[in-house]
Amino acid sequence: MAFTDLIEHFKKIAHFQHLSSICGWDQAAVMPAGGAQARSEAMAQLSVHIHQLLTEPQLAEWFARSQEQLETAQQKATWREMHRQWQLANALPESLVKAQSLAGSQCEHAWRSQRKNNDWTGFEKNWAEVVKLSQEEAQIRSDITGLSRYDAMLDLYEPGTNSQALDKVFNEVKTWLPSLIDQVLEKQSHEPIILPTAHYPADEQKALGLEVMKLLQFDFNHGRLDQSTHPFCGGVPSDVRITTRYNEAEFTQSLMGIVHETGHARYEQGLPKAFAGNPVGHARSMGIHESQSLFFEMQLGRSAPFIEHLATLAQQHFSANESAVFAADNFQKLYTRVEKGFIRVDADELTYPAHVILRYEIERDLMNGHIKHTDVPELWNEKMGAYLGLSTAGNYQNGCMQDIHWTDGSFGYFPSYTLGAMYAAQFMATMKHSVDVEAAIARKDLSPIFTWLSDNIWSQGSLLTTDELVKQATGEVLNPVHFKAHLVSRYLG
Amino acid sequence: MAFTDLIEHFKKIAHFQHLSSICGWDQAAVMPAGGAQARSEAMAQLSVHIHQLLTEPQLAEWFARSQEQLETAQQKATWREMHRQWQLANALPESLVKAQSLAGSQCEHAWRSQRKNNDWTGFEKNWAEVVKLSQEEAQIRSDITGLSRYDAMLDLYEPGTNSQALDKVFNEVKTWLPSLIDQVLEKQSHEPIILPTAHYPADEQKALGLEVMKLLQFDFNHGRLDQSTHPFCGGVPSDVRITTRYNEAEFTQSLMGIVHETGHARYEQGLPKAFAGNPVGHARSMGIHESQSLFFEMQLGRSAPFIEHLATLAQQHFSANESAVFAADNFQKLYTRVEKGFIRVDADELTYPAHVILRYEIERDLMNGHIKHTDVPELWNEKMGAYLGLSTAGNYQNGCMQDIHWTDGSFGYFPSYTLGAMYAAQFMATMKHSVDVEAAIARKDLSPIFTWLSDNIWSQGSLLTTDELVKQATGEVLNPVHFKAHLVSRYLG
Repeated sequence: MAFTDLIEHFKKIAHFQHLSSICGWDQAAVMPAGGAQARSEAMAQLSVHIHQLLTEPQLAEWFARSQEQLETAQQKATWREMHRQWQLANALPESLVKAQSLAGSQCEHAWRSQRKNNDWTGFEKNWAEVVKLSQEEAQIRSDITGLSRYDAMLDLYEPGTNSQALDKVFNEVKTWLPSLIDQVLEKQSHEPIILPTAHYPADEQKALGLEVMKLLQFDFNHGRLDQSTHPFCGGVPSDVRITTRYNEAEFTQSLMGIVHETGHARYEQGLPKAFAGNPVGHARSMGIHESQSLFFEMQLGRSAPFIEHLATLAQQHFSANESAVFAADNFQKLYTRVEKGFIRVDADELTYPAHVILRYEIERDLMNGHIKHTDVPELWNEKMGAYLGLSTAGNYQNGCMQDIHWTDGSFGYFPSYTLGAMYAAQFMATMKHSVDVEAAIARKDLSPIFTWLSDNIWSQGSLLTTDELVKQATGEVLNPVHFKAHLVSRYLG
Repeated sequence: MAFTDLIEHFKKIAHFQHLSSICGWDQAAVMPAGGAQARSEAMAQLSVHIHQLLTEPQLAEWFARSQEQLETAQQKATWREMHRQWQLANALPESLVKAQSLAGSQCEHAWRSQRKNNDWTGFEKNWAEVVKLSQEEAQIRSDITGLSRYDAMLDLYEPGTNSQALDKVFNEVKTWLPSLIDQVLEKQSHEPIILPTAHYPADEQKALGLEVMKLLQFDFNHGRLDQSTHPFCGGVPSDVRITTRYNEAEFTQSLMGIVHETGHARYEQGLPKAFAGNPVGHARSMGIHESQSLFFEMQLGRSAPFIEHLATLAQQHFSANESAVFAADNFQKLYTRVEKGFIRVDADELTYPAHVILRYEIERDLMNGHIKHTDVPELWNEKMGAYLGLSTAGNYQNGCMQDIHWTDGSFGYFPSYTLGAMYAAQFMATMKHSVDVEAAIARKDLSPIFTWLSDNIWSQGSLLTTDELVKQATGEVLNPVHFKAHLVSRYLG
């Protein structure tokens, strides 16, 4: 039967993706530098093999024949998600994929030094090719999906969302965010804060991190915590690998980073086992994935009772004479400081959306061909002025050259970050109708919170579309009012 | 060109084997238990894929066509080793491989509890099938190679060796080993020894192990040290992963275990890079591999000047009040104690060959059909009496049920251990003609020793046959006289 054949075929693909994930984790977390060359060759061979499996000629017939055999909603969703993977893999001609890979890695490689040297002129030359090829990709995907060029790229990360919806949401945010930021900055300027200044050994940071992961009910029988230069959540649902990095002069960032990655990890660990090895068993989208990490980091991790636990645990691990640092209210301040800055990855919860909206507006217009790649620095400067009151004139390295995403051609990814923050706020607002969240955290039994997330999000995999999932969980589709209410309550409350 | 096609094809296979090695290491060293099910499915899929690549129909034609194009000795050796891998992979019908895998894992699984319960009757039932299937395998391999059935199995691990040669060597050993053991035991009974009895934290054992690896010039840019239940050397030549286990009540075993695995690792790290990704670039045989680990462990690691370094380093790491333990002459005694015991893996250098010869004689006769599997316990008891003066009557768990090798059908492997010990002694004897080994160790610069090994063994990969390799390195093929001389000098000297 064609449908069963498809499921078996995707199970096979999943096995190779499993090996790719584990070897990818290995590469980032434990591989010695000298192993890089042979490893990247082996990984490239594996990618080719996975791509071959996704583009085998008989799949077209299996999809066509099985479409009429679908009876249940589960079967339809399973077909839909397999079909989506197949369509994505088959959309681009091999020559374009190769050209993109080449241009992307050349641009990225040069960017690593060009960014340090603020060398826009050098960067722009390589980037022109990356943008051109991404526009070609967007055109091809647009032809297939019938979406606008940018929306076809957005669809890679956030299937079902489009720029019409995003424009509406982000434009609304723009009406209140800049002034909210100013109000909060004014308020915080009167509040003294004590920064940690002692030495915080990596071993102790790790022990503390593990304890916090336990509190967050990370399943250590199906996962690990390790170190890497860039923290990430990898592995497979049965064996989720999260990483962090330790700065021995400062522990707060790594600690909250672990909380963030634990959110990603619990989503993966909670995906429906009945659909393991099939795309319908995967996480719904990048935005929903980010909603879980940000639920953990922002909604849960920065809540007053959780911060109190963190402060107590941290003080137990770092016996330094810094009791003022570890006072709960100071800890709360450490984790809710707001600052207008140039750099997205260093941004706080409140200013982060401004960074994302700026990028969204530029990449949307770039992919749709309304602006040229050489217009980007000026537009960046303009929008930084409007949203955060900062100038990036001539400051490319802290402006449009700061992120890796565009460098390697990942246009359409940025909105996921802020969509995630908004979904997280919406989930928390809904959860509070049925769960006494504060009390659960206070008594250190977070099970009711995780049961809600598991029932409504994790266990759903990709059985529903994003809109269906969010509506089933919260009674409405994305509604940024919850995000605003959350920010006002936390930062002006 | 067919020859180039073959090389490209084997490079592709090597990439998948790379991923298999790394994921295998991961499974043994870091994977949480809950990841096992999905991992073993993914690894099985990868094995099937590698086997498919090795059995693709066009290879037969490529081998035939390229055989006439070979000009240089290197090309001929490259062809020979690829051909060998191909022949091994294509020898067995799929039905037999599946039946063996099933019978082997059933037998092994049950064995884990049966051994604890000394349950020969239960074990014998499962084992009958394993032996029967291995005999079938031996027959098929014998038909292809023209070797005797046992020799065809031996050829899997020690290509070029046969039981005629082994009989000659092992029979000679049997003429002097039992009496040598008795002499040494008598001598050692008069020598007091002080055992370590303090607590040796795993962290410190690891730090000590890393220091010793540095002294042994392990290349940390191309490898790592980790922990696993059963120590092994895995990974790939560009990224060699060795493991150990730590017992905090006793440090000597793990420490020398690290020296042993470092020997395996340096062989892998020293394999010829020009032939990376081709079977001709692989280690020569299991026996030669073991010769390198045993060269490190027995020839180098237990030599007087090296033991002196070990004792000094160990004392620096374990600040316990045990200076008598760490005295160089006591350390030497700790590492050269001889004891007649039941268990091969716990055996010392001197009694180890007795364990191997016993197994060799039994598995040879079993594969050749001269004995039945039900004869094994009685034969075991008889030979233990003759070689080590011990009875295993009714003691199956410490007799013929002690090893995993036969349980899963790996007949033909055991001789490699003692061949390795003999080759190691022969290499050392030869090396001493041109290198002042004792002086090099004493001044902690072991480079001349490693240069000899690299030139003569590591850099040769599988370009030569085992006999050619040993003859080129030492002027003669395997000659057990060096092993005997080494044992006499160390234990009665």
